[in-house]
Amino acid sequence: MRREVLDSLIERALGGDKLAIGKLLTVLEQPTPEAGYVLSRLAPRAGRAHVIGVTGIPGAGKSTLISKLIAEFRRRGYRVAIAAIDPSSPLTSGALLGDRLRMQLHTTDPGVFIRSVPTRGLRGGLALASIAMIEAFDGLGFDKIIVETVGVGQAETDIMHVAHTIVVVTMPGAGDDVQALKAGVMEIGDIYVVNKADKPEASRTIEYVKFAIETGEVGSRRYGWEPPVIRTSATLGQGIEELADAIDRHYKFLSERGLLREKLTSRRKLMLRLMAGRLISSVLESIEVPEPRLDASIYDQAVELLARACRAATGRC
Amino acid sequence: MRREVLDSLIERALGGDKLAIGKLLTVLEQPTPEAGYVLSRLAPRAGRAHVIGVTGIPGAGKSTLISKLIAEFRRRGYRVAIAAIDPSSPLTSGALLGDRLRMQLHTTDPGVFIRSVPTRGLRGGLALASIAMIEAFDGLGFDKIIVETVGVGQAETDIMHVAHTIVVVTMPGAGDDVQALKAGVMEIGDIYVVNKADKPEASRTIEYVKFAIETGEVGSRRYGWEPPVIRTSATLGQGIEELADAIDRHYKFLSERGLLREKLTSRRKLMLRLMAGRLISSVLESIEVPEPRLDASIYDQAVELLARACRAATGRC
Repeated sequence: MRREVLDSLIERALGGDKLAIGKLLTVLEQPTPEAGYVLSRLAPRAGRAHVIGVTGIPGAGKSTLISKLIAEFRRRGYRVAIAAIDPSSPLTSGALLGDRLRMQLHTTDPGVFIRSVPTRGLRGGLALASIAMIEAFDGLGFDKIIVETVGVGQAETDIMHVAHTIVVVTMPGAGDDVQALKAGVMEIGDIYVVNKADKPEASRTIEYVKFAIETGEVGSRRYGWEPPVIRTSATLGQGIEELADAIDRHYKFLSERGLLREKLTSRRKLMLRLMAGRLISSVLESIEVPEPRLDASIYDQAVELLARACRAATGRC
Repeated sequence: MRREVLDSLIERALGGDKLAIGKLLTVLEQPTPEAGYVLSRLAPRAGRAHVIGVTGIPGAGKSTLISKLIAEFRRRGYRVAIAAIDPSSPLTSGALLGDRLRMQLHTTDPGVFIRSVPTRGLRGGLALASIAMIEAFDGLGFDKIIVETVGVGQAETDIMHVAHTIVVVTMPGAGDDVQALKAGVMEIGDIYVVNKADKPEASRTIEYVKFAIETGEVGSRRYGWEPPVIRTSATLGQGIEELADAIDRHYKFLSERGLLREKLTSRRKLMLRLMAGRLISSVLESIEVPEPRLDASIYDQAVELLARACRAATGRC
């Protein structure tokens, strides 16, 4: 895509044109010079957004909760973008959104933008595509960027680590709920939500989670933060304000301690790292590989192949 | 580890010492000069083994089937090695093996060797570790190498593609069984097994699978092979001989057409590719990354970082 086309897309996207935003995000899915250019145009404007990772145990009602959270954030005047890494998320079809929000998605109202990151066809580039999307949303002026993941896998873990605030969603369950929260990033949540709290076992689950946080089993206590446990019933619309309050409170906590900048820097460093990794891995996948010689070290031959791939990827060496 | 230590381990492993085999396999889990050395000692001896990938829908009884297959292969005089990529496989604990086989695992009988590939801690190196393990088993003189995978994920797909014969296990189910076989490598099975065939719906499932193969929906027909459907009941020990016959027949089919060599070459090329990839990715994970400049293309900076990482990984460029 030519520079002028990209420039025009960027201008329109900054004006809130959803079609243009969508096209830019497609450009950012692959590590190309075009993607690099778009990022270098948007990144200088970025650094203001609050990135919120939402994950949780399957069936806890994560997507419904997010849809209610979007509405609450809109009421508070925030522009909200959602990156859904979960391929099964009903959010991307608009199915869970209220009528008003669904309308907005189809108009030029720049207040809400929902996009799924394709989990197929990226061959290891999921984390890069997601983080580039977050950077773009940030540069386009969204205030809250919600990243929805299923929370398992290396890429998902990398992605959640760029979030300022990690929200972990659970629900009243069969006793082993706390154990289920000890997988991957769920273990280091900044905020815990017990959704479906209209169920009778809810209070017990809340006690369990609180106890697990107090004893240090789960929850991030970085810099002295005390992870709260929020009781919600997303379908009934209960507890959503409290959750939004807690999310805003955590952002303020980080901001007051000057910790936002640090997160931004590490996000961008990771983006650079992942882009370098994707550049070489796509060459390694396509390059002609000789049949290994059996009379020499396979390791030495791998080093040789790598040097050749690097020349192809960088034009140097 | 010094050369002499590795040489001694290799000698003992070639003599059937299971402790030595285990230690060599641990060396091969990481892409190091030591691993390269071990491979260069074992690879010249390899190229004789029949690599069999076994995958299937969850709950189909894959592990029980494999345990019976091991016993049948032993009866036929084959030495059998199993690489379990499935972390939940009960095979690696020996739980499913018959008393005689379980005994052998703890003695110096070199006839059976079972090993799980750690799916954690390899950070993208799962396919490499698995293929290096296959190469080692081959070089150590195992006749049949069974690779057990859950069949989802990129690494698992890469691994299954190095198998000469892909066995897909399904079971009598609720009508949508053929649909379930259309995921990843299950779609390109060389042999289909309907396990738990003592269940009443078995005949219908067998017809479904046969029909799906005939209409080209599933099954690999490379070089004119007709994928058979084998009816087994692993727990009752039924159909195991027929399965072993079909596996041997497929190997003969490939051998008569001169296709074994081709598979071996592509396996080794993939190993080289994966090792080069791991070398660079481990450097990219550990290298000091500068904070990206926002006034320049992120792409150009990623190229710069890659060139630097490549110098660190190869000592060149």
